[in-house]
Amino acid sequence: MSTQAATRISVRDQFPGMAGGWHYLDTAATAQKPQAVIDATVDAMGRDYATVHRGVYARSAEMTLAFEAARRRVASFIGGREEEIVFVRGATEAINLVANTWGVEHLGAGDRILLSTLEHHSNIVPWQLLRERTGVEIDVCPLTADGRIDLEAAERMLTPAHKLVALAHVSNVLGSVLHVEHLVELAHKVGAKVLIDGCQAAPRIKLDMAALGCDFYVFSAHKLYGPTGVGVLWARSGILENMPPWHGGGSMIDRVTFEKTTWAPAPQRFEAGTPAIVESIGLAAAIDWLEQVGLDVAEAHERELATRLREELGQRNDVTLFGPPDSVGIVSFALDGVHPHDLGTILDEEGVAIRAGHHCAQPLMDHLGVPATARASFGIYNDESDIEALLKGIERTRRIFG
Amino acid sequence: MSTQAATRISVRDQFPGMAGGWHYLDTAATAQKPQAVIDATVDAMGRDYATVHRGVYARSAEMTLAFEAARRRVASFIGGREEEIVFVRGATEAINLVANTWGVEHLGAGDRILLSTLEHHSNIVPWQLLRERTGVEIDVCPLTADGRIDLEAAERMLTPAHKLVALAHVSNVLGSVLHVEHLVELAHKVGAKVLIDGCQAAPRIKLDMAALGCDFYVFSAHKLYGPTGVGVLWARSGILENMPPWHGGGSMIDRVTFEKTTWAPAPQRFEAGTPAIVESIGLAAAIDWLEQVGLDVAEAHERELATRLREELGQRNDVTLFGPPDSVGIVSFALDGVHPHDLGTILDEEGVAIRAGHHCAQPLMDHLGVPATARASFGIYNDESDIEALLKGIERTRRIFG
Repeated sequence: MSTQAATRISVRDQFPGMAGGWHYLDTAATAQKPQAVIDATVDAMGRDYATVHRGVYARSAEMTLAFEAARRRVASFIGGREEEIVFVRGATEAINLVANTWGVEHLGAGDRILLSTLEHHSNIVPWQLLRERTGVEIDVCPLTADGRIDLEAAERMLTPAHKLVALAHVSNVLGSVLHVEHLVELAHKVGAKVLIDGCQAAPRIKLDMAALGCDFYVFSAHKLYGPTGVGVLWARSGILENMPPWHGGGSMIDRVTFEKTTWAPAPQRFEAGTPAIVESIGLAAAIDWLEQVGLDVAEAHERELATRLREELGQRNDVTLFGPPDSVGIVSFALDGVHPHDLGTILDEEGVAIRAGHHCAQPLMDHLGVPATARASFGIYNDESDIEALLKGIERTRRIFG
Repeated sequence: MSTQAATRISVRDQFPGMAGGWHYLDTAATAQKPQAVIDATVDAMGRDYATVHRGVYARSAEMTLAFEAARRRVASFIGGREEEIVFVRGATEAINLVANTWGVEHLGAGDRILLSTLEHHSNIVPWQLLRERTGVEIDVCPLTADGRIDLEAAERMLTPAHKLVALAHVSNVLGSVLHVEHLVELAHKVGAKVLIDGCQAAPRIKLDMAALGCDFYVFSAHKLYGPTGVGVLWARSGILENMPPWHGGGSMIDRVTFEKTTWAPAPQRFEAGTPAIVESIGLAAAIDWLEQVGLDVAEAHERELATRLREELGQRNDVTLFGPPDSVGIVSFALDGVHPHDLGTILDEEGVAIRAGHHCAQPLMDHLGVPATARASFGIYNDESDIEALLKGIERTRRIFG
């Protein structure tokens, strides 16, 4: 414990966004950036800047190497292959990409998709838009009483009509973790492909695509201590290489004539136009940084903080806790008689930043029977002092609201 | 002239990417970034970093203000209204967005789109993908002998079946400038909407959407001295607010249930997921910087450099010049008996970076009867020394190739 505590303190100092004793507890929304990522961005925007894939001059060739090295870095981070990595704006675009390519081709009337009650809007709305376009049907897997996706229910619900199961690896509201391998086994048994929304998992759990066995995996860089404006779609190469294009433009073509245009191979086929060059390089720097800290250290650290907070809140008889006890770094709760927004506002006066709202998961709020929750989510830079400040702020809120 | 020359030198010093006497002549591919844009990025990634639209704490509220201020900044830069500005990854995504929303709704079998021979792939391929999906037909407006879009031909070709005309404001290969107001008059007369690809125009020509009269205008930040990963779709609000959504996810919804989801108003409806927050703020900084220099100064400066280069190259009997004499900052040419790639490689050894290739405009290459051109494109940081270095490099290439 003492070694970890020491690690934490030195890590916090590497985040300029955490200066001034700010108690940032909204990492599930977006993570602060370590200086290493900012430095990589500055170099890529300045000293090293050039376009990729097109220049005959040295600096453009070097930038292309750096960009493709970032792709390999992402691949090694998740145990995938570089030709399976598509750079997108974020997880949302990644899911829309799958819906508009593989989905349009494979999911029509008579086919079904299985989602769950706890999905983020980004893993609901793209499928609803696809439903409007192709007539595919959507089923919703319920949750267990403690807020996990109920895989026994999933097993009962899955039929050969199900062509896709799309679920969150970690709930952005409850912090509950999906047993992906088990889900994949159930889904593949009926012939369904599996898409995993890894936004909250990628910064917290060591990933290995081969071990997980899923078919699509998506995450955003900005939740992984990396830049905004970039994210990742991983798709098993046997699938990706057969997907039709979505966005048309430069770099994704083989040959363009007005009569007929042919496509570049994957992943280039899915990266039309100038990509987020600087941001992709920044993502690689974030991965380098995070792996240096250690995913196991990050997971243990954030689990410990979440457990500690749940224990503290559990001792209050005016607090309702949502989600299972073994959350990875995300704690949603309600303070009796206080709207989460009011709590958030008072906490803000104390320098404590939590999220209050529906967390882009309105169906889950409907299920929980609340319009919103208060959510404290931890990052690698948080420590006990953040919990203490939060508890102090809750106490003050209690005094104000009586 | 002496004032301008002084301006240039001080401007060049503000670009860390231009250090070391590099002669960067590939600004049409992407522009270097001034220190002011890098500084804005560093602040937004560090000291000021938080998510937008969702936090109840002060820093998130401030970031939201900065993000929406960036939208207003873009609007004022092009003479539009803030609710008409959609942040996208770049011009390519913007055109795909229009094709997949307005296009899917309005362009079907029996309808026609008018493009031109000189369009960038980003303004060809999205329409071809739409053609596959809806059966809309594509017509191609020819060019004049000196490489402009032939508006007399356009007038003859346009019929009431044409629902859209989509053209480049400035050719990325030839530097020729479209008379947008005239084109709009012709198109609107038959009831066609007008989309303008402004990638090369936005950094070089003062824009005013009201004066141009077009319906859609798109450009990328990275060609405007701004960050990668962000760009702009402007659409007249009477049009934008009626367009259906494209990417589904967080922030673009009003209310989500599994049965039925309703949409947020424009422009939020088109910005699913966490946007490129830092990059949008960086774009606003780039616009601030460019307007401080002055668009008129930029245009005059780059026109002058392009004219000077054309004059110098025109004196050689082994050079073919493409495009009209009044190019804005972009000069494409061929050196007899030397492949553009070989020229580019030798120039690179002299510290001169030009582009050699099809410039994502293969139909134009086919029209010119060449597989590729050499292209020198100017930015606000270039000066006579870059032209001298280019000419010296061409001379050396001549000696090598005999």
